[in-house]
Amino acid sequence: MTGARRIKLIVAYDGTHYNGWQVQPDLPTIQGTLEALLEQIEGARVHVAGSGRTDAGVHALAQVAAVSICNPIPCPNLKKALNRLLPRDIRILAADEVAPGFHPRYDARSKTYEYRIWRAEVCPPFERLYVHHHPYPLSEEKLAAAARRLVGEHDFSAFAAADDRDQLGRSKVRCIHSSDVHRRGDMLAYRVRGSGFLKHMVRNIVGTLIEYAKGNLDDAGINSLLRPGASRRAGPTAPPQGLFLIGVEY
Amino acid sequence: MTGARRIKLIVAYDGTHYNGWQVQPDLPTIQGTLEALLEQIEGARVHVAGSGRTDAGVHALAQVAAVSICNPIPCPNLKKALNRLLPRDIRILAADEVAPGFHPRYDARSKTYEYRIWRAEVCPPFERLYVHHHPYPLSEEKLAAAARRLVGEHDFSAFAAADDRDQLGRSKVRCIHSSDVHRRGDMLAYRVRGSGFLKHMVRNIVGTLIEYAKGNLDDAGINSLLRPGASRRAGPTAPPQGLFLIGVEY
Repeated sequence: MTGARRIKLIVAYDGTHYNGWQVQPDLPTIQGTLEALLEQIEGARVHVAGSGRTDAGVHALAQVAAVSICNPIPCPNLKKALNRLLPRDIRILAADEVAPGFHPRYDARSKTYEYRIWRAEVCPPFERLYVHHHPYPLSEEKLAAAARRLVGEHDFSAFAAADDRDQLGRSKVRCIHSSDVHRRGDMLAYRVRGSGFLKHMVRNIVGTLIEYAKGNLDDAGINSLLRPGASRRAGPTAPPQGLFLIGVEY
Repeated sequence: MTGARRIKLIVAYDGTHYNGWQVQPDLPTIQGTLEALLEQIEGARVHVAGSGRTDAGVHALAQVAAVSICNPIPCPNLKKALNRLLPRDIRILAADEVAPGFHPRYDARSKTYEYRIWRAEVCPPFERLYVHHHPYPLSEEKLAAAARRLVGEHDFSAFAAADDRDQLGRSKVRCIHSSDVHRRGDMLAYRVRGSGFLKHMVRNIVGTLIEYAKGNLDDAGINSLLRPGASRRAGPTAPPQGLFLIGVEY
């Protein structure tokens, strides 16, 4: 592509009404929505590369994407044009020209996710799409301790989605840099930063942490899940709407 | 109704998907949704009295309602049953038995509303249903000054909806107890407490405050709108999704 520029986009989205990030035929997706609009602007098919997929119903505060376009539109105008054309549940927070080789997935050093659990008996209407409502008894101390236990390099095979075909035969060892639980009013926020995440991994971690915090799983159980070749599967998979991709670090 | 108990309900709702509080044939409303469920529980038609209507798309943190039912269900169980049956965008925050004569509208001393204006260039996806996105230049000092100007007793005829037939011939004098603007990050929150509000009154106040803060209306203009028999109409009417009924004071 002569004259093509590489543009890095920071994208926030409410995943409620989308079948996740990745393009799927006849289903609304974030990537598909962005590609359709960029095709209008570019007058040709545009591939939007993302830092990784998010599942149906999962949100992003700052997903990172990149596109190569020949249209000479200045970046601030591109941002404005996209925000004018996009549905209001997808917003471009930044658009900047970067080196031609930039790839949001392969260049990422780490990613940060947050999972939000609402602890009060009643979940406010305004939070319902953005938290997992779990008002049942659990030990926050145990939740926090089990979260910290995950820091370091582990084989997360037991935490991958059963149908994660992309990862067949590939290493499922990932490094978790930080893994903490914070209380914010009636909300428990679990924040995890790591070198990479398998499909459903964060949601399976959260499901496992909750089981541990309720006393349904002990230390030996957690340890056995983190062992290479674990026979048990982690989980259950916590529901998608509590999960936010917070950011991608380069 | 022999044995009927009067129950006061505190109701929070996300008004996005409703045609306002008041029952309307074949349209989803908050009152209609509550009445249909209470009829299931009571086995007979139940009238839900509210502290006042909210327009289509307007939200409530703590609307107050009251019902008379004969079903002996304890209040905590009624609250749980309603929250199990209601859609998740309507929540019962409290259910308590009160004096038989309690009426949420006639007994109210004052009501508090908040109107949220998002000032940043980009409106986050998660705020889009709960703010009026107005990133254009305006003077926050003028906004705050004009807000304070409304405190006291005034004839708000110019701020009533043109089609407010319920109020035909009735006094449109209302007393505003407080009227302030606060900044919370990228949001401007206008909070107003008053003895009562006409249809569209808060939204017309906000539209008028913004016009003043943009220099499109001067002090004489505001004064003339507050004069009995004002010939001009206030406004424009700010959009509904920025408005929250915060609470009702008894």
